[in-house]
Amino acid sequence: MKVNQNYKKLRDNYLFVEIGRRTSAFWETHPETDIVRLGIGDVTQPLCPAVVDALKTASEEMGTVAGFHGYGPEQGYAFLREAIRDAYGARGVSLDASEIFISDGAKSDTGNMLDIFDRDNVVLVPDPVYPVYVDTNLMLGREVIFAGGVEENRFLPMPDPRVRADIIYLCSPNNPTGAVYGREALREWVDYARAQKALILFDAAYECFIRDDSLPRSIYEIEGAYDCAIEFCSLSKTAGFTGTRCGYTVVPHALEYEGTRLNKMWLRRQTTKFNGVPYIIQRGAQAVFTPEGQRQVREITDYYLGNARILADMLDRLGVFYTGGRHAPYLWLKCPGGLGSWEYFDFLLTKAHVVGTPGAGFGQNGEGFFRLSSFGDRARVQTAVERILAL
Amino acid sequence: MKVNQNYKKLRDNYLFVEIGRRTSAFWETHPETDIVRLGIGDVTQPLCPAVVDALKTASEEMGTVAGFHGYGPEQGYAFLREAIRDAYGARGVSLDASEIFISDGAKSDTGNMLDIFDRDNVVLVPDPVYPVYVDTNLMLGREVIFAGGVEENRFLPMPDPRVRADIIYLCSPNNPTGAVYGREALREWVDYARAQKALILFDAAYECFIRDDSLPRSIYEIEGAYDCAIEFCSLSKTAGFTGTRCGYTVVPHALEYEGTRLNKMWLRRQTTKFNGVPYIIQRGAQAVFTPEGQRQVREITDYYLGNARILADMLDRLGVFYTGGRHAPYLWLKCPGGLGSWEYFDFLLTKAHVVGTPGAGFGQNGEGFFRLSSFGDRARVQTAVERILAL
Repeated sequence: MKVNQNYKKLRDNYLFVEIGRRTSAFWETHPETDIVRLGIGDVTQPLCPAVVDALKTASEEMGTVAGFHGYGPEQGYAFLREAIRDAYGARGVSLDASEIFISDGAKSDTGNMLDIFDRDNVVLVPDPVYPVYVDTNLMLGREVIFAGGVEENRFLPMPDPRVRADIIYLCSPNNPTGAVYGREALREWVDYARAQKALILFDAAYECFIRDDSLPRSIYEIEGAYDCAIEFCSLSKTAGFTGTRCGYTVVPHALEYEGTRLNKMWLRRQTTKFNGVPYIIQRGAQAVFTPEGQRQVREITDYYLGNARILADMLDRLGVFYTGGRHAPYLWLKCPGGLGSWEYFDFLLTKAHVVGTPGAGFGQNGEGFFRLSSFGDRARVQTAVERILAL
Repeated sequence: MKVNQNYKKLRDNYLFVEIGRRTSAFWETHPETDIVRLGIGDVTQPLCPAVVDALKTASEEMGTVAGFHGYGPEQGYAFLREAIRDAYGARGVSLDASEIFISDGAKSDTGNMLDIFDRDNVVLVPDPVYPVYVDTNLMLGREVIFAGGVEENRFLPMPDPRVRADIIYLCSPNNPTGAVYGREALREWVDYARAQKALILFDAAYECFIRDDSLPRSIYEIEGAYDCAIEFCSLSKTAGFTGTRCGYTVVPHALEYEGTRLNKMWLRRQTTKFNGVPYIIQRGAQAVFTPEGQRQVREITDYYLGNARILADMLDRLGVFYTGGRHAPYLWLKCPGGLGSWEYFDFLLTKAHVVGTPGAGFGQNGEGFFRLSSFGDRARVQTAVERILAL
């Protein structure tokens, strides 16, 4: 039996391992220190009451003959697909429920979606970038090229018409930079993709942090996007589902390449290799889209945005260049004093006892930058800010 | 953007669509009939109380700051992996918890596992067969060859040393035939795989129905299997998790091909393309492995086996050839009177108002055979039997 040799091209990602190693080493020699973690990309606030109630009710149902649910539709129950369709509709994005696929999260679907594309496609990803976009393509033996996010473009790379690409990744609001594309910039990307017959994979996992109606929360707010874009979204950040696992992927019927409808291919992929998201979890997800659920999850994202505001104010006071922190849970700052990412990591850890994420872990262009996350507890964020300002 | 052309090799699977179409058509012209469905491969009994309690408790936990769980380990929580390790250990199969990966079901993992193998491998699958074994390999462009299950070998095909294969699928107790390999037969397969440096993908999704300790419930009960086999298992049938989605896959550290450890590759695949099973669901799954949970789920599988016994007794009385029905929830019978699979389907539907599954839907060798399932309600099974015997 021969193994997939493409796996040898993957580099081990030591980013969070190395963060853990350095933090533990410092802690061992300074056991009295109180370390504040602003590095984590995970949420910390509990599930909202509407979701918990729905999960419990569905669990009870499953214990009864009348309420038991066995195999469900692989693409998700209609009650949830229709709730999501209506939520898009309320924002002016018209979708059919059959264009929406319920998933166990955007990470699974962004990886698995690649099954339906030929190996021989050129993939364009931003740098810095969420590392799994790159790794999932390398596993399949695809060529990956980069669009550079830098200080000059405020980490919002734009298309270069001289560059040929078949598959284009965009993530807005961005992880790790927190940068958000405006309508005009996204339109340029859509026009570029259409001109090349390329496909945009749009990661909208952080759309819930957008508080300005002039900023697009969905790629489908841009004219022409139904013909050239798949959108991935998730309840992980919207409703604290990182450990509850539910997302959704939009594959419009209008998407057609080489005479083949991608919606039909993806349905075939999912019915063959997936058996749907647990009924209980889909009932929990449905509760997010009720008026009560929307109010409750909004409170939570407002809380994180409040943390982001506190961190942004600190950076403003320090006069440091940064992106994000508005309409995004991440702040991406230029390390002061020309420090490298890991040098600044060590500086913050040893002097302020604050842990963040070195930008170098997200690609070449991340060197010299640093990510702070607003997913922590308010009091801890304030403690971190006081310590950093006191330095 | 170029699409994966291998998808064009897939044939649409109309089996259950056609069953539904013919059933509806009959129903429309005979609205007074009471149709008994013995075709379904889904369970019908509710989740047991131990599982429901664990699901509710975990849901409540997730609503509290102290009990909230965000991203979990992609390979599953230690509490569940260790419970499964202990359950294997109690049956004499020694595993390390790091060899066990928690999944959202055997269907996902049998499909996704193929990512880590080269395209250029020959795949040997039994015929008749669970169709997704074939389709998931065709999607990747692999050559698929067949090992014939026929009346003469009681639908338990054995290895042919003249046939070269790299990846071998075995499913025991089998879907759709209900046939169960004995220890000696599995040993032959293990020896064959080792001689060829091939890999066995062993689908143990129905192991919980084995009630005879002399029959292997795990491939690892066979000497040498740690070196040549991956085992997929599921709580779908064990504990009624078809709509709750939790399974597990065993990838031993001893598995090494071309100098590469498959355990490490699969861990890399899962950490890159998967984010684990919901915490709540894993707590529910853990409850299956408690003494109380084991007692409760055993009652349910005993109930289905009781149904199977009733169907087997009927076939014995009719003098029809069949496999399965003991240590398996399925019965695979030779259509009486030389009828084809669909002819017998129509006969049962129109004369007895009983719906089963035509064997022709599971491969060439399924023609002339028919699958009955014991996953229904006891009284309905008895009704079906009375009607068929009265014919």
